Amino acid sequence: MPLSGTVVVDLSRIIAGPFCTALLGDMGAEIIKIETPGKGDPLRKQGAMVDGLSWYYALFNRNKKSVCLNTRDDQGKAVLARLLEQADVVVENFRPGVMEKMGFGPDRLKEINPDLIQASVTGFGCDGPYSKRPAFDFIAQAMSGLMSLNGEPEGGPVRDPLPITDLISGLYAAFGVACSLVGKRKGGGGEKVQVAMVDGIISFFAYMSANYLATGQLPQRTGNDHPIVSPYGVFRTSDGEVALAPSNDGVYQKLLSALGLERLNDDPRFATNDLRMTHRSEINAFIEEVTKTETKAHWVKVLNEHGVPCGVIQNLEEVFNDPQVLHQQMVMDVEQPGYGTIKMTGFPVKLENRPCKVHTPAPELGQHTQEILTRIGLSPKEMAALRENGII
Amino acid sequence: MPLSGTVVVDLSRIIAGPFCTALLGDMGAEIIKIETPGKGDPLRKQGAMVDGLSWYYALFNRNKKSVCLNTRDDQGKAVLARLLEQADVVVENFRPGVMEKMGFGPDRLKEINPDLIQASVTGFGCDGPYSKRPAFDFIAQAMSGLMSLNGEPEGGPVRDPLPITDLISGLYAAFGVACSLVGKRKGGGGEKVQVAMVDGIISFFAYMSANYLATGQLPQRTGNDHPIVSPYGVFRTSDGEVALAPSNDGVYQKLLSALGLERLNDDPRFATNDLRMTHRSEINAFIEEVTKTETKAHWVKVLNEHGVPCGVIQNLEEVFNDPQVLHQQMVMDVEQPGYGTIKMTGFPVKLENRPCKVHTPAPELGQHTQEILTRIGLSPKEMAALRENGII
Repeated sequence: MPLSGTVVVDLSRIIAGPFCTALLGDMGAEIIKIETPGKGDPLRKQGAMVDGLSWYYALFNRNKKSVCLNTRDDQGKAVLARLLEQADVVVENFRPGVMEKMGFGPDRLKEINPDLIQASVTGFGCDGPYSKRPAFDFIAQAMSGLMSLNGEPEGGPVRDPLPITDLISGLYAAFGVACSLVGKRKGGGGEKVQVAMVDGIISFFAYMSANYLATGQLPQRTGNDHPIVSPYGVFRTSDGEVALAPSNDGVYQKLLSALGLERLNDDPRFATNDLRMTHRSEINAFIEEVTKTETKAHWVKVLNEHGVPCGVIQNLEEVFNDPQVLHQQMVMDVEQPGYGTIKMTGFPVKLENRPCKVHTPAPELGQHTQEILTRIGLSPKEMAALRENGII
Repeated sequence: MPLSGTVVVDLSRIIAGPFCTALLGDMGAEIIKIETPGKGDPLRKQGAMVDGLSWYYALFNRNKKSVCLNTRDDQGKAVLARLLEQADVVVENFRPGVMEKMGFGPDRLKEINPDLIQASVTGFGCDGPYSKRPAFDFIAQAMSGLMSLNGEPEGGPVRDPLPITDLISGLYAAFGVACSLVGKRKGGGGEKVQVAMVDGIISFFAYMSANYLATGQLPQRTGNDHPIVSPYGVFRTSDGEVALAPSNDGVYQKLLSALGLERLNDDPRFATNDLRMTHRSEINAFIEEVTKTETKAHWVKVLNEHGVPCGVIQNLEEVFNDPQVLHQQMVMDVEQPGYGTIKMTGFPVKLENRPCKVHTPAPELGQHTQEILTRIGLSPKEMAALRENGII
């Protein structure tokens, strides 16, 4: 697999860091997840539990090995140093300063292993005025501007339902690590790779940020209407709603033809996209008059055949039974030892030669402590002593 | 830079593919953007224009070179084949089948260059029942389940205001290419790297998908309330609102202490998170009674000092003047030849040794045609003939 042979020591917990390491693990890196003895990642107890297993934990920790280690203890720190000596990457999502307090600041890490890639995900950045604040996805959504853009025009700002700033920053961190590995193969040394949750989502504002920076005009919340395209949005049919996205004049003409509404071309109110923006409710009414006469399935078929992007608004039950989603293997059955077959979402990146797979299901707490510590040279006697003292 | 020496031929346009190649270019890859002579990427004409320049185009096409080439013409195809011969990566976001129709299907690409990484971003996947449908971010949001989760509990499904499925799939494609490059340096050959917009967002559903797959219970839209944590949300102050995210019992205790509400510990309605979920409006009222007595700035300071994640809901004007955002250099001044200094969002991945930078501002249409075609061995006479025929 692409990242086979890459060893990642994973000090992260909950979401952003573990998402980064899950993605690296999916690509074949060996992920050594360090967990507090007897406790482990809090995610083990979050989300819906089935027979004592959190499927949320299982999803975010597939393709990882679990090593119990008390990193606040001096003997534990010595073991961690030996692990880092032989690793390619370390990933953490502590608040800035915590690694230093643990005795593993950037300079110490370089001493231990000058080739180590040090990846960190923080809320606001590793330094600067807000760096010491506790971070959380919801706060990053609020402060980044995302919430100000999300929602209906007549309502207030709304949070994104996904932990989106955690996930985007985790994915960016995985990308940064992979790029750093490419450079490294060409002879570079280790380096810090830092991603802040707020920065990640800001980089996703696309035309929202570009237009604001160009004009100084604040973008407004527009709900399901597109801020600069009309017609566009959600339309009623005889048995529910469809989403329509005619993205330009060419596709708009295809829409009129599919709906038998070519006569609207003679109506001066609808001659250009700008005019259709002004007369949005009128043109929407004409369209809905037609779409209401047939079913969702009818319009999805007919409009797509005419080249007009059109789809239904699916809930998760419909999504996970959708023939295309199943074709793409976006729901997987995974054998979880001790729990039978569980389901989780699949791999979005499809590599031809070396496809992602679950080579290691999410580990039991400390399942690989002995394997990994033996590899770095601890004797059974040393391990027994550490275990006795609650350090592993 | 990490990807220096990597040559990417970029056949993509608009958003998803160009976002992927912008990210690769930020990391130092040479991006050769192929554009239709006289027309170019439609993004050049989208978004707010200043003196004829789209800042949206400039943002998404920084760090790229532009080569004009009519790839529907046989002579143009011959030039493209020579470009691909010497490239490491090709990126495209056509509908499935278009590359084959152009004469550059996967087998032909392997013939031309067996080491070529072939990256593609599609709406639904390269094959399967929906693969021939036209794709668009809004439709991917509807069909993936994202819209069903976004919005207020009493309202309908709402689209995400960002072209989120385009951007996530573009970032995943960049990650896939980087991983494939890591493998390649170890002796692997070329391969297809495929990402579908719907798959990318499905992989972001985190506990929403895990809980649904574990229990069969559909997640509900909860607006600004967290589906499984209380208190949590947006609270009024004397001069606006703050977002509060006490994520667990420990942080909840810090919140009570910061607000002087320790007496709520004696109230059996609020003894556990589950009980606080049931009595959400009551506990929210107690909290707001206190938060309304002071300003946003007061609570942001006091609550963060107490270790409670808290922030204001900023609009883009506030974001781009925020001291931490500026500290992180998330707004950059870029010298755009012919247009003076323009502004764009910065780089979310901070690499220590080889930081991302704008080494090449977004190109004029065909600005690098001569440079690149000279490099692959075309003579001035050949180029003159191609230019005369409108092929370059």
